[in-house]
Amino acid sequence: MANTFASRMIINVLGIPGILLLVYLGRFYFAIFITLVCLLALREFYLLCRIKGISPQFSVGALACILISLFYYRGLESTILSFSWQNIVILLVLITIVFELFRNKEKGTENIAITLGGILYIPILLGGLIALRQIDLLDYSFGMRLTMSLFITLWVCDSAAYVFGKMWGKKKILERVSPKKTVTGCTAGLVSAILIYLLIWKLGYLESSQSSVSLSILDVLILGIIVGVFGQMGDFIESLIKRDVGVKDSSNFLLGHGGVLDRFDSLIVASPLTYLYLKLSIGSGV
Amino acid sequence: MANTFASRMIINVLGIPGILLLVYLGRFYFAIFITLVCLLALREFYLLCRIKGISPQFSVGALACILISLFYYRGLESTILSFSWQNIVILLVLITIVFELFRNKEKGTENIAITLGGILYIPILLGGLIALRQIDLLDYSFGMRLTMSLFITLWVCDSAAYVFGKMWGKKKILERVSPKKTVTGCTAGLVSAILIYLLIWKLGYLESSQSSVSLSILDVLILGIIVGVFGQMGDFIESLIKRDVGVKDSSNFLLGHGGVLDRFDSLIVASPLTYLYLKLSIGSGV
Repeated sequence: MANTFASRMIINVLGIPGILLLVYLGRFYFAIFITLVCLLALREFYLLCRIKGISPQFSVGALACILISLFYYRGLESTILSFSWQNIVILLVLITIVFELFRNKEKGTENIAITLGGILYIPILLGGLIALRQIDLLDYSFGMRLTMSLFITLWVCDSAAYVFGKMWGKKKILERVSPKKTVTGCTAGLVSAILIYLLIWKLGYLESSQSSVSLSILDVLILGIIVGVFGQMGDFIESLIKRDVGVKDSSNFLLGHGGVLDRFDSLIVASPLTYLYLKLSIGSGV
Repeated sequence: MANTFASRMIINVLGIPGILLLVYLGRFYFAIFITLVCLLALREFYLLCRIKGISPQFSVGALACILISLFYYRGLESTILSFSWQNIVILLVLITIVFELFRNKEKGTENIAITLGGILYIPILLGGLIALRQIDLLDYSFGMRLTMSLFITLWVCDSAAYVFGKMWGKKKILERVSPKKTVTGCTAGLVSAILIYLLIWKLGYLESSQSSVSLSILDVLILGIIVGVFGQMGDFIESLIKRDVGVKDSSNFLLGHGGVLDRFDSLIVASPLTYLYLKLSIGSGV
């Protein structure tokens, strides 16, 4: 127990400033980091599904992580060797189903579906973080500020939900999926997410210095709700998968923190939604 | 048996000219027809998976069929309410995983993966037929000729494979997946696909009358191989799914012909590949 606590502390002491530094550096440093996170998280997801007797195609998953991250890095409208994002998705599906023919594994249908489902769940959703960091409205630091705010808000939301839930939480919110989470904890998470976003905004951190873009109070409220509601749902979705498989942590990769998937579960849902919202609200520059 | 034969004949007598007429008409007539095919085939796929105790989300699948067909109809680079194809894929994934939280069904992981896997397998692949028909190089009839040729070649390939396999076939090609298919049958299918494409090409049917586009003999050979090799693989993939589930036909929707999925299995693989090949070989006009 003490050991777990110590290793949790080490991960936090190294992990938090490490991630903030990578967000600050941006460019391919951040993109490569997120690609590695996707590769590790997808591997964990596939290993979890193996417990159910399913044999996903790890190699196709890895190829997809690299290609999709590259698209998020270069822009979703770019091409790779004349192939658009749409074409690559079509090709990945064709490769997966054709490969399965020659694999001689049980549960062929699930093998195909889990291979492809994992690609949609992890690189396609979580890769949204790369797109968010790449947002460039004349001012490359705007993407950095947005990504920084997302990480900080999520961490505060997670911690508030944990502390308030532990201290005052009684009524379970969705016991079937996640037996420990309480209404009090989740509410505290949501309220703190909105408050932190508002604070960051009030401090002027969410204004783009060189362009005319600025977020309204409504934008900031919606970003807070994305983290506070949908980020927490990301957590529930991972719990649903783990409960379905029958394990507690996605792996033991991050000693005491469970696996990579456990650490990035809220971001899997919150990042693409934050990116999509900003794209729709600010428009073409995103 | 006689009854089955009679109903097969009815389906052929009505079905073949019916489909050719729809290909000829093109525009939204053909697009709506393929959308309906996708809806029926996806429903069959989901019902097959139910036999394995999986509960896919039919409503999300249906929504996806409609949206993806609309994109193929209007062009993959178009937008729907400011959402690009990429954004819609991201949203469909988010909707599926969030809905699953509130469904209280067993096998949550498979439910999500099969819902999304089915969307990738059916509308995203088979929808390529709409894109193929919409190919418009100054001359809208070029897409019609390409689609017509694909259907005709596939039908001849299927029939040749069946007849030659039945008459002279001995050695099984992939017995584990499809116990009846023979090396002789599949070879006859491939050879006939190439020959029919070459014949259609020789007759001048594959030249675009108003533009300078014409297919080379290499293009035509590759299109023949797409139908003869990958079209037949589409058939094997569906057999793999059905064998995995433990049924013979995907449904009994088309009396004696099995289900819609059985009839369109080769097209699921051959159409997007034909479309992608033409897009890469002819380029921007496609």
